[in-house]
Amino acid sequence: MKLFTRSDIDQMDKIYRLNLINSVTGYKSANLLGTKSTTNQLNIAVFSSITHLGSNPPLVGFVLRPTTVPRDTYKNIKETGIFTVNHIHDSIIEDAHHTSAKYPTEISEFDQTELEPEFKGDFDAPYVKNARISLGCKFQNEYEIKENDTLLIVSEIVEIHIHDEALEDDGWVRLDKAKTVAINGLDGYALPNLLERFSYARPKK
Amino acid sequence: MKLFTRSDIDQMDKIYRLNLINSVTGYKSANLLGTKSTTNQLNIAVFSSITHLGSNPPLVGFVLRPTTVPRDTYKNIKETGIFTVNHIHDSIIEDAHHTSAKYPTEISEFDQTELEPEFKGDFDAPYVKNARISLGCKFQNEYEIKENDTLLIVSEIVEIHIHDEALEDDGWVRLDKAKTVAINGLDGYALPNLLERFSYARPKK
Repeated sequence: MKLFTRSDIDQMDKIYRLNLINSVTGYKSANLLGTKSTTNQLNIAVFSSITHLGSNPPLVGFVLRPTTVPRDTYKNIKETGIFTVNHIHDSIIEDAHHTSAKYPTEISEFDQTELEPEFKGDFDAPYVKNARISLGCKFQNEYEIKENDTLLIVSEIVEIHIHDEALEDDGWVRLDKAKTVAINGLDGYALPNLLERFSYARPKK
Repeated sequence: MKLFTRSDIDQMDKIYRLNLINSVTGYKSANLLGTKSTTNQLNIAVFSSITHLGSNPPLVGFVLRPTTVPRDTYKNIKETGIFTVNHIHDSIIEDAHHTSAKYPTEISEFDQTELEPEFKGDFDAPYVKNARISLGCKFQNEYEIKENDTLLIVSEIVEIHIHDEALEDDGWVRLDKAKTVAINGLDGYALPNLLERFSYARPKK
């Protein structure tokens, strides 16, 4: 076993630390966030920090650093109040990862990749066409995490689109049927296979 | 495609909604949090909300509802200031899931499963023996998420233990070599395989 003490971590080369600390919390969700600016510019950006916050009301959270990329996503969400969350599946990982490149605001990542925007119903933020699981979300609040000047963005889910074959009878979504991937660190993309689904855990007699 | 509107979600049966909303944000990290009470009772509990918050300083976050299970974990962290985060690997998923059963405070989940505690160095919270990736963490702050009465717990990483074979030369940890699993919804456990690791994304010329 390799041991890193806090002093080792603090003295690491910056890239080594970024790779290490981004990996050690385990797999992260892999989503593309779609937004539209007030000047109708469409934006799409990969996020690995989308987290379930609660079911009733249905809330999701994600973390960002407002002073760095992806500034456009944050600005659009604050100005329009809405965004989409689109699961990344195995066949779009290369384009999904490319959305993390720092393009100027006036260039849409949709034009630099094979990813295509799609509008559904009257929800006025772009979904990713052919995503198998997508959420329409509405900004609720933001919390400043003082320890490292990041923001936790809290949003409610206003609509959900799911490929029928991934949805089970009791509401559970079998993510491996949608080929949803998970992110390992900053730049690794992994495809999970279901091992087991357990029932609600009760104390042993 | 199946569409759920917000009105559908609000009117759902509670269990159906829990299954659905817990699945639609994508895969979640799969960790066991180890704590020790002030009376030396050891506690271990599965958490799917451990998230990377930042690398410098190395910070992790997780969400909990202080008025429900796992109360013991929260109480111990607040009283002792420390806890461990241990990756769940494929061969311990059944015992890991069982730690979500509601045992009385005086019963340790370590005694109800094959999971064994292990103390390392002078860090005074229990690690899970044979975990391939583990973090020693120190409580920093908590933020009340008013939208649903949950807490975001912010903690710093003070030490990291990693199986050598999972650690690459640039600090990236290849999670599939440690057989780390990911959680799908409330009760599904999936094993990811790496598809691709990309380089830092730069704009196309």
